[in-house]
Amino acid sequence: MTFIAPSADQLIAMRVSAGIEDLAAHDRFSAATPDLVAAIAEGIGALAEGEWAPLNRVGDTQGARWADGTVTLPAGYAEAYRAFVEQGWGSINGPVDFGGQGLPFTLATCVLETLGAANMAFTLLPILTVGAIESLLHHGTPEQQATYLPKLVSGKWSGTMNLTEPQAGSDVGALRTTATPITQGPHAGKYRISGTKIYITFGEHDLAENIVHLVLARTPGAPAGSRGISLFIVPKFHINADGSLGARNDVHCAGIEHKLGINASPTCVMTYGDNNECIGEMVGAENGGLRAMFTMMNSARINVGSQGVQIAERALQQARIYANTRIQSPRAGSPSKEPVAIIEHPDVRRTLLRMRALTEGARALLYYTAGQVDRGALGDEAAQLRAEVLVPMLKAWGTDVGCEVASLGIQVHGGMGFVEETGAAQHYRDARIAPIYEGTNGIQAADLVTRKLGYENGAVLQRLLADVIAEMEDVPEVASLARDAAAVAAWMASTDASLDDRLAGSVPFTTMCAVAVAGWQLARQARTTGDAAKTAVTMFFNRTIAPEARGLGAAAMAGAGLVYQLEAAAL
Amino acid sequence: MTFIAPSADQLIAMRVSAGIEDLAAHDRFSAATPDLVAAIAEGIGALAEGEWAPLNRVGDTQGARWADGTVTLPAGYAEAYRAFVEQGWGSINGPVDFGGQGLPFTLATCVLETLGAANMAFTLLPILTVGAIESLLHHGTPEQQATYLPKLVSGKWSGTMNLTEPQAGSDVGALRTTATPITQGPHAGKYRISGTKIYITFGEHDLAENIVHLVLARTPGAPAGSRGISLFIVPKFHINADGSLGARNDVHCAGIEHKLGINASPTCVMTYGDNNECIGEMVGAENGGLRAMFTMMNSARINVGSQGVQIAERALQQARIYANTRIQSPRAGSPSKEPVAIIEHPDVRRTLLRMRALTEGARALLYYTAGQVDRGALGDEAAQLRAEVLVPMLKAWGTDVGCEVASLGIQVHGGMGFVEETGAAQHYRDARIAPIYEGTNGIQAADLVTRKLGYENGAVLQRLLADVIAEMEDVPEVASLARDAAAVAAWMASTDASLDDRLAGSVPFTTMCAVAVAGWQLARQARTTGDAAKTAVTMFFNRTIAPEARGLGAAAMAGAGLVYQLEAAAL
Repeated sequence: MTFIAPSADQLIAMRVSAGIEDLAAHDRFSAATPDLVAAIAEGIGALAEGEWAPLNRVGDTQGARWADGTVTLPAGYAEAYRAFVEQGWGSINGPVDFGGQGLPFTLATCVLETLGAANMAFTLLPILTVGAIESLLHHGTPEQQATYLPKLVSGKWSGTMNLTEPQAGSDVGALRTTATPITQGPHAGKYRISGTKIYITFGEHDLAENIVHLVLARTPGAPAGSRGISLFIVPKFHINADGSLGARNDVHCAGIEHKLGINASPTCVMTYGDNNECIGEMVGAENGGLRAMFTMMNSARINVGSQGVQIAERALQQARIYANTRIQSPRAGSPSKEPVAIIEHPDVRRTLLRMRALTEGARALLYYTAGQVDRGALGDEAAQLRAEVLVPMLKAWGTDVGCEVASLGIQVHGGMGFVEETGAAQHYRDARIAPIYEGTNGIQAADLVTRKLGYENGAVLQRLLADVIAEMEDVPEVASLARDAAAVAAWMASTDASLDDRLAGSVPFTTMCAVAVAGWQLARQARTTGDAAKTAVTMFFNRTIAPEARGLGAAAMAGAGLVYQLEAAAL
Repeated sequence: MTFIAPSADQLIAMRVSAGIEDLAAHDRFSAATPDLVAAIAEGIGALAEGEWAPLNRVGDTQGARWADGTVTLPAGYAEAYRAFVEQGWGSINGPVDFGGQGLPFTLATCVLETLGAANMAFTLLPILTVGAIESLLHHGTPEQQATYLPKLVSGKWSGTMNLTEPQAGSDVGALRTTATPITQGPHAGKYRISGTKIYITFGEHDLAENIVHLVLARTPGAPAGSRGISLFIVPKFHINADGSLGARNDVHCAGIEHKLGINASPTCVMTYGDNNECIGEMVGAENGGLRAMFTMMNSARINVGSQGVQIAERALQQARIYANTRIQSPRAGSPSKEPVAIIEHPDVRRTLLRMRALTEGARALLYYTAGQVDRGALGDEAAQLRAEVLVPMLKAWGTDVGCEVASLGIQVHGGMGFVEETGAAQHYRDARIAPIYEGTNGIQAADLVTRKLGYENGAVLQRLLADVIAEMEDVPEVASLARDAAAVAAWMASTDASLDDRLAGSVPFTTMCAVAVAGWQLARQARTTGDAAKTAVTMFFNRTIAPEARGLGAAAMAGAGLVYQLEAAAL
């Protein structure tokens, strides 16, 4: 299927919702001129269209293959990844000291969104590398940074994030992997790592020269729970003093999962220390692993929210082509009895418009969030806090949007959508992972109503909603939704609501907030650009999707009593 | 995974929502005593649990296999189908004159729902046979009935429905298969059939002795479009004068589709007359094929709506077991730091309750509809019309519920849900077909706002909603929703709304109506039984899902102008 990078809409979102021109007014981001921004959108679009998108289908049908501890990607992936590295896309917002270009996160978001729309599963490889870079940048020693960052920033080496163990899914504190200090010999000062991790994305593959595993483990005598975990670097190949690759470390891929989707992304079972020779270095403070992990998580959650936008964009494009070319049935009520393209039928038209409105709404939220991250990096503390409040909304609602749009994409295809050859079904399968990993959407919602709602006693969230209300006087549906969300937030922050009450309403509440912010940003984009299509899409969003989100208010405030009426055994 | 037939809830739904006891008060259904109803629910539950459910997984992983024109189901399917036939489950509501038991459709609904919850893909085989029985019963000659019905009613032979052709998906009038009268020789009076049909469910398989294809085709000189199609019986094996099977007819399976789900159901490409020797008999009047097809469709649409309930039930059961046994994280805010079963966490609890409320709500709508069908068969014309108005609501919303509950089932499993071995993903894949086939949900919604809304100028639908409002004085959320739906219906039936306006709002409107009726029937079940679980589930449904459906009112009344703002090319 033809894929066209969504550069035009990205440029609108970067300009209006991320405020890229304001960012470029700062010294640090002064390179991000309008010309450069356009060149980046165009350049990554070319790579995505020309090299990454054509591999999406074989990535699904053939997928990553495991044999004897090695994982092989389908033909073409190595070349496409090499092009990504050689063209420098991995280093867009990488630290300048380590070979990066130091550009805004907003532009890195554009790069990953574009690649992911072309090939969502493949894009997990650079996404995970970003997580490793961030941890080392914030918590690594100068030596660790010098050793690992240049190669990670360029993409020659890739990164992984090793949290989950079979008995510890979302509960990181329950992990059992151990790290024992080595006191003698060539590895003195390092640790011997032992344990098994599951769900390790790109834990093993044949695309990068080395793989840098960031592994959570417990040192001897560490406190129980999440306060007793530390972070370790475990390279696949040891690194010699001169920076060249040394011997193989004792970390192995014991197998990959047979999954519903994202088959080009190997989901690995990783064993550390099968021969008691797995060597790792601690990153950051002992027992400070959770904090280091949270560093990785913020941008990872944004990038997963972006995956919702990515798969929605891809599904929308495919459905739009089909609806414009599939000729069937005359238009109802038309004097002509000639069959028409199905996009002319009202409900198919509505469905496509809904797909587009959800996709562009989620993109607006994505770039608004990215812009706040960039402002935070420039020292704007209010923006930093706002970004943190936005992240769970983006991750949860963005990935819900991905699933819904992919499902609607199948529906537009009718029976053809259920046949795998069409390709619409792949998007539906691929999309389904995003609400789960990087913290399930339920965990995102819990993060919003517990940690994030607590920022300044709720004032950080209330200021965001107040901004929406203030600017939406002429968009009553969005203003009403924001007012409803603010009322729920006020109730949740009050003593009237117990912790259980907040958690019981957290998911519908998160959707309400996300839709309000997305509708606001769409309306700002429509106003600023005066673009006819943007205006029509925004009007549809605000007149149908915003009222629908208001319908969630009752569930958000229903309280835990409604949920706990039945004992677990009776449910 | 252990599967338990949902007999207890079915008995409630049959008693309260279908009114099975009132039906049994009629002579025709007097055999349907409470004891018999309970025995049927129990008996089919045993078959479903013991023989059909254990085959569900192999049906997915191995699936139906095509080779050289034959289709083979996995080991065990033949025995399980034979048990179905020998125990007489196919004949529950079959016509007494042809070996059926003449029991209410409500009980046949219970049989198919139970089997389908155990094995959705497999149950398509009896569902299709029911369609063939109905066409022959209403449109066949006495000879055709005598030849075919006893074998179809028993299930020894199975039936198919052949509408779709590659160029004619939802537009049946565009089909091109031809039927040429035979004037001489042993087949004089019959027709030579020629053409290709696609998406033919169980078009070929190894479970029944013969397959009776009901095929739509055009006779020479027939009018263009849907007025020029006739219905034909095309048996796989000719039938000798003594009723024994004769030579193979010239109908062949050229291949089966590689699908997203329902892999145990072969979706066949059927070729008729490869050797110009495909012989068929006309059923009903020449050019009366569309009418005969609609006869099949009413019950088929109910049975597909039921598939939504089926897959929801299966997904709910699996998620409930997982949530009760997966131990992870202490309860938030609890003084105990011991991890608990995830069902104890508020959002998981809410998710499961939502799954159950949607499932039982859809089941309530299913049996309410089935009860109206039975009243219609007893001569109650108002009930007949009400059934016809309910069918698109049930088909569309019931299948949407199936998809949503299956998706939530994955979510409850977290990362495990995305791994195919867990089985949750199969339900998500299987569920996705139901909104598409038997008329897409968009077509159901169009049927509601065009044909069905037109019954007595909207009065048939308004009386239904008035009944909801009248009985829901103490359930304000449902009464409000029904009032909103009635207002949309009044607008749609008025000259203020164009045909395009109605169609543009048809899908959200259909959901509103369906949820109102489901909430009403749940509330009636809770009142009548006083059951604590039913009361809790109903309260959750009415306080969260009903208000959510009210949120669709704006979209239902948004009008076509909003949808057609952009030209197709600009969308």
